[in-house]
Amino acid sequence: MSTVSEVKAKAGLEDVVAGESAICYIDGERGVLSYCGHDIHDLADMDRGVSFEETCFLLWHRRLPNRGELGDLQTQLAAARVLPEPILRAMRSLPPAGGMDALRTLTSLLGHVDADAAVKTPAADYRKAVRLTGQVGSLVATWGRMAEGGAAIDPDPSLGHAANFLYMLTGTRPSALSARAFDVSLVLHADHELNASTFVARVAAATLTDLHSAVVGAIGALKGPLHGGANAAVMKMLIEIGQDAGLERVEEFVRAKLARKEKISGFGHRVYRTEDPRATHLRRFSQSIGEKTGQPQWFAMSQRIEQLVKSEKGLNANVDFYSASMFHALGIPLGLYTPIFAVSRIAGWTAHVLEQYANNRLIRPRTDYVGPTYPQPVLPIDQR
Amino acid sequence: MSTVSEVKAKAGLEDVVAGESAICYIDGERGVLSYCGHDIHDLADMDRGVSFEETCFLLWHRRLPNRGELGDLQTQLAAARVLPEPILRAMRSLPPAGGMDALRTLTSLLGHVDADAAVKTPAADYRKAVRLTGQVGSLVATWGRMAEGGAAIDPDPSLGHAANFLYMLTGTRPSALSARAFDVSLVLHADHELNASTFVARVAAATLTDLHSAVVGAIGALKGPLHGGANAAVMKMLIEIGQDAGLERVEEFVRAKLARKEKISGFGHRVYRTEDPRATHLRRFSQSIGEKTGQPQWFAMSQRIEQLVKSEKGLNANVDFYSASMFHALGIPLGLYTPIFAVSRIAGWTAHVLEQYANNRLIRPRTDYVGPTYPQPVLPIDQR
Repeated sequence: MSTVSEVKAKAGLEDVVAGESAICYIDGERGVLSYCGHDIHDLADMDRGVSFEETCFLLWHRRLPNRGELGDLQTQLAAARVLPEPILRAMRSLPPAGGMDALRTLTSLLGHVDADAAVKTPAADYRKAVRLTGQVGSLVATWGRMAEGGAAIDPDPSLGHAANFLYMLTGTRPSALSARAFDVSLVLHADHELNASTFVARVAAATLTDLHSAVVGAIGALKGPLHGGANAAVMKMLIEIGQDAGLERVEEFVRAKLARKEKISGFGHRVYRTEDPRATHLRRFSQSIGEKTGQPQWFAMSQRIEQLVKSEKGLNANVDFYSASMFHALGIPLGLYTPIFAVSRIAGWTAHVLEQYANNRLIRPRTDYVGPTYPQPVLPIDQR
Repeated sequence: MSTVSEVKAKAGLEDVVAGESAICYIDGERGVLSYCGHDIHDLADMDRGVSFEETCFLLWHRRLPNRGELGDLQTQLAAARVLPEPILRAMRSLPPAGGMDALRTLTSLLGHVDADAAVKTPAADYRKAVRLTGQVGSLVATWGRMAEGGAAIDPDPSLGHAANFLYMLTGTRPSALSARAFDVSLVLHADHELNASTFVARVAAATLTDLHSAVVGAIGALKGPLHGGANAAVMKMLIEIGQDAGLERVEEFVRAKLARKEKISGFGHRVYRTEDPRATHLRRFSQSIGEKTGQPQWFAMSQRIEQLVKSEKGLNANVDFYSASMFHALGIPLGLYTPIFAVSRIAGWTAHVLEQYANNRLIRPRTDYVGPTYPQPVLPIDQR
């Protein structure tokens, strides 16, 4: 029942360009991912690359910061990492839930107590973006500790965002390798154009709702197993196979799953026709940190699964596949894998929300109606 | 930088058909709104129309219920109106916030304690839809009471959903006219195809996240002043003009606003080129309930504004314009106008989420990249 002016899109809005953006450029044919013109391989280089804080600045300002700007941002983020007392109190009394549910509820609650809650200006929205980015890391780390019966650890303002997260989670200051590897993983996850959670954030923001509301919606979308939930699903699969099972068992498991036409999490991507450029880095970390921490088996199993899925199904590993074994090697509990995705993606979500506010139009598509023919009579209830 | 296969949409996805749906059919040229084939004018008829509960069943099942089915649903909804104790406790200790923030946080919290929280089957998702629809009404009514210093009132299972809401809010069982007028307003607001909040819910649901997450995202979007926030903005404008000011003052106010090129909330719609068919009913209620409660001035002011905006700008009143003065005449506090929209729209949100789950594909569009040219070098920090 569409009218002449309507354009019927492919299912899932595949290949539909929903709007302009200056934040992220992806070339799915050539396997290019870039933030504001900077190739992800340059940004994620272990030695010459940038930090998560520099990435945040880049996404918010479309250019890398100089030393003074970076120092200012680090100070603002460090201040924001101290969670407001009502949030810590709520965290202690929250009915039990998964990490993403807790993160969704607590981020919503952060909107109640934000210093700029009643203000809707570009400057206030930017402050909210910085603050939320600092807070979400502390929320996830502290929730992770409490979920295992530990007490909250105060943030250490002398540490970078990645190292501080690992410190607040584990109580131990991480090695330089672990800190930088985790930092790079935050850089890799920080934005990915109009992925489902970011699109949720932009559709919400286009009603001119507040930044917290848009981000809370994004968190809810990230939770889904077809989105951020996939990294946890990959690790569950590895654990199900069993770390002592050997590579024959891996092969048997994967072939049986494929024979049953079951989906294997961590493979394939709507946009990439090549390897996901983020997987290249995460694969290396999975290997190096696994070796360093004396648990090389998870990488070996992952590599075997990757070979099999590639040869049998022609599918490439995506961002979620090797982040699973890498997070495991870093000692991160399974329940935090998807929340950690949010610790990084909050940078991209907020950048997209700010960009939407700056040049806004309500996002409101149509459906193709396929229900009962119009008009149907409303029969009296005893005649139905 | 788009590739050949990409389709560039108009800003805001205007006229883009994002997918099939059997729930709502709108013909914006002819001013037709219908749920599952039933014209909104038939459903919203004061005497021969249907109740909100029948509308819920219609949206969820694509047909109106018979007497037995309606009785079952009424029983389920009545049971769900009793809020879980942890939610009431949280409501009492929530940091102060607007009604939509409270609704967003508490609905998120409902996801922690839902009886089916750990289950993701079509049957469990349907139970969640029914439960949330019952709960959201109680949340809003109870929050509204507490915000004014009152104590929670237990729901009355002998009342319909609309009458029970007014009872839980005011402590008084409403007149038949008020109850049916509010019931019809719930019918009118229950669904509207891919409006921004429903689209948020569907994009989130398409990651296969849980129903609560999808609804929490929708609540955040509804809060926006370009969406559900508009009904409160209309009432604020009426109050700003002043009920004793007289119609000349109304005219002066509106002309000055138009001269400053300011937007007047409650007018215009992305889809309708005619009058919003919901406004037809709400205009009548605004008048009849205003007269009944001895406050006819709000309707008179609204009518004058409508005439002016129509003649000066050619814009028609939308759903939000007359719902403002109608809610006011029903004695509903201003802070609840947008939350009340959610009390009804929860039916449509959940219907769309269930429909998305039943035939799912990840919703993931693209952007047109307009940022710094790729590739940019990553300069050492002292050279930036």
